[in-house]
Amino acid sequence: MKAEIISVGTELLLGQVINSDTAYVARALAELGFDIRFTCTVGDNPRRLKETLETAFLHSDLVVTTGGLGPTDDDLTKETCAAAAGRKLYCDEESRRRIEQYFHGRECGPSQYNQAMLPEGCTVFPNDHGTAPGCGFTTPEGKIIVMLPGPPKELLPMLHQYVVPYLSQWAGGTIASTNIRVFGIGEGSAAERIRDLMAGANPTAATYALDDEMYVRVTAKAETEEAAKAAIEPLKEAVCARLGDAVYGIDVGSLEEVVVHELSRRKKTVATAESCTGGLLAARLTDIPGASDVFHMGAVTYVNEVKSMLLGVPEALLAEKGAVSAEVARAMAEGVRRKAGADFGLSVTGVAGPEPSEGKPVGLIYLALAAQDGTFVRQMRPSGRKERSYLRHLAASNALDMLRRYLFGLPDIERAAFLNDKPAHRAHG
Amino acid sequence: MKAEIISVGTELLLGQVINSDTAYVARALAELGFDIRFTCTVGDNPRRLKETLETAFLHSDLVVTTGGLGPTDDDLTKETCAAAAGRKLYCDEESRRRIEQYFHGRECGPSQYNQAMLPEGCTVFPNDHGTAPGCGFTTPEGKIIVMLPGPPKELLPMLHQYVVPYLSQWAGGTIASTNIRVFGIGEGSAAERIRDLMAGANPTAATYALDDEMYVRVTAKAETEEAAKAAIEPLKEAVCARLGDAVYGIDVGSLEEVVVHELSRRKKTVATAESCTGGLLAARLTDIPGASDVFHMGAVTYVNEVKSMLLGVPEALLAEKGAVSAEVARAMAEGVRRKAGADFGLSVTGVAGPEPSEGKPVGLIYLALAAQDGTFVRQMRPSGRKERSYLRHLAASNALDMLRRYLFGLPDIERAAFLNDKPAHRAHG
Repeated sequence: MKAEIISVGTELLLGQVINSDTAYVARALAELGFDIRFTCTVGDNPRRLKETLETAFLHSDLVVTTGGLGPTDDDLTKETCAAAAGRKLYCDEESRRRIEQYFHGRECGPSQYNQAMLPEGCTVFPNDHGTAPGCGFTTPEGKIIVMLPGPPKELLPMLHQYVVPYLSQWAGGTIASTNIRVFGIGEGSAAERIRDLMAGANPTAATYALDDEMYVRVTAKAETEEAAKAAIEPLKEAVCARLGDAVYGIDVGSLEEVVVHELSRRKKTVATAESCTGGLLAARLTDIPGASDVFHMGAVTYVNEVKSMLLGVPEALLAEKGAVSAEVARAMAEGVRRKAGADFGLSVTGVAGPEPSEGKPVGLIYLALAAQDGTFVRQMRPSGRKERSYLRHLAASNALDMLRRYLFGLPDIERAAFLNDKPAHRAHG
Repeated sequence: MKAEIISVGTELLLGQVINSDTAYVARALAELGFDIRFTCTVGDNPRRLKETLETAFLHSDLVVTTGGLGPTDDDLTKETCAAAAGRKLYCDEESRRRIEQYFHGRECGPSQYNQAMLPEGCTVFPNDHGTAPGCGFTTPEGKIIVMLPGPPKELLPMLHQYVVPYLSQWAGGTIASTNIRVFGIGEGSAAERIRDLMAGANPTAATYALDDEMYVRVTAKAETEEAAKAAIEPLKEAVCARLGDAVYGIDVGSLEEVVVHELSRRKKTVATAESCTGGLLAARLTDIPGASDVFHMGAVTYVNEVKSMLLGVPEALLAEKGAVSAEVARAMAEGVRRKAGADFGLSVTGVAGPEPSEGKPVGLIYLALAAQDGTFVRQMRPSGRKERSYLRHLAASNALDMLRRYLFGLPDIERAAFLNDKPAHRAHG
């Protein structure tokens, strides 16, 4: 069945609020197997809403509206949708009672009670986190209308608790999907490698860029959840085979999550020593719940004296090679590993910009991983984006990727990431 | 002039990505004085896009599209829009050169160069943060089409740097605006304090929430830029007066920017000692260019032994009070100040969750600022959101705010932020 989503609210049209409702509703509808052909936003304007609704029903079987159910005068969605379906409004006593209870004791004007006026014969969706109930009903032509409140904290629970069960009577099959997470290949290159695999209609594969990485989403539709999941498998495996060990996980949250969980599983620890990333690598590791099992110490050594004092990097080495060098990266990683008594030491030193440093260009960054059996160094010389925040994020990701490659026994542990144009340099090991 | 925004992308229709582009474009258009009547999203489907474009031009003078300019086969916005305006595509040499440069040396297939194919006679908007340029042109009927790339980090800078100037030829007058940045008051409370000031039509004041802070945007429209800027001033000052010293800056980038610049101006340094924020505070400070003048050392001390080893926090104190305590926060701040030889030591220790720790609840966090004349401690016990990432960000913001208050001689330096429900605690000073 085809579906459309209409969001109502002048604040959305003016861009004062980012519309997340549409995405939440769309995900739920897609999982129920509805085909979403179009979504749109109109202002608090009954005439425009009426036209939009009529156009939607020319093409679609289900229309979901979000917003415009509140107590203020410009909240006119219910009146408009009910009229379009030839239904009158009635006062739903249960909804009225809930509104009274919500305000108990506080001032509650007649406009609040307007929210209990609903189209006759509708299915009411109680609002467990606010005042305006939602509802669903069908038109004489067999079209389905669902109206939901705008605030996401009211809409989301209502959607999952009441709307999905209501709509499942019309759902034609189920959607299953999986995300293949990739670091070290750009979206364009990945798409070229899997172009033929992206041509199918069911299951489908599509590429998405995400900060300094990309992912491939594989989706299938089938009668049952089991069948949909089974339909995903061969395509997922084909995509993974093409992208090789740049695939760092399936349906995982992030590189740091993969690294923290694997360290935890093996009861190993890592310590960090950071110069240009300034704490970002530690911050990403510790963003994962349970990081305290595997991460005990991080040092942010932003100047040479602190590199010597905290990590024991020899002053002579700093003087000879400069702070941004493979040798200093190695000394930092080995130093923090020793100081923390950790299994692994991970270091970053480089020029994040905006100005060059030590006569070295913005973007030149060295990373080192010190392990029991040796120290590996990776050099980054990205030729693309050079913004400071991006370079810092990319450097931290590269450090995490080195540790991932070590932990999973992948070749090419010191291999530079996709933005590098020079081969990396193995210091030792 | 009337405007519509069309977003293109199946990932948006499926709700896999929340559409923030539409809001960003809408804000810019609203400030230029365009009336936005409708926004919508279509999938990667040329026929549907063509219909939508034709319908849009029945009602509107300007259509802005977002998305569908990338290198993959489903990126068909340009072909479709150019055809609708009767224009052919040509290869824009400058765009091609920029794409080549972006990839230099790396694998760059022919699909990448497709992005340099643009409608004849268009105004090109260079992409300073990616590969797909945007463009603008008019149809024979005098309608305006603007096409922008989908990724917000590419779209936003292009919008402000190239698109607003391009569209200003059709805007009725000039817009000037200013952002008043606020930490320590929620958006709702701020709006209540300035409700009467938000009622005007020109200049306007509007509130926006942003992570753990909020800002007020004051905008005026006038014949000339000078007149628009002058019209902003009285309202800006009135808003600032109401919000008091929670205003941390006007048209600045962030709390950390204000702190780094003020430290730099005074030639002072700060060192950080972090437990639950795990490096995030250092990462935020060092995200500001020039941070190396004021920040030399940060310690991430995620376990008690490292707090003692690196910062000299007495083991007895840790045993008696626990790591999450005002006393340990103070010892960490004083320890890192001493160790780094810095003017200020800033520390964070607390329970970021998801599980309680030491029998202390998620969200209980202590911050300390050690200065020459004493140490200040702030306690956070947020009663609202409790997600780990949010709490960590809020804790780092509170630490930055303490240092800001000290540097600018504001009262209430140890004052807890807006989410706290208990008064803060001054350890000393």
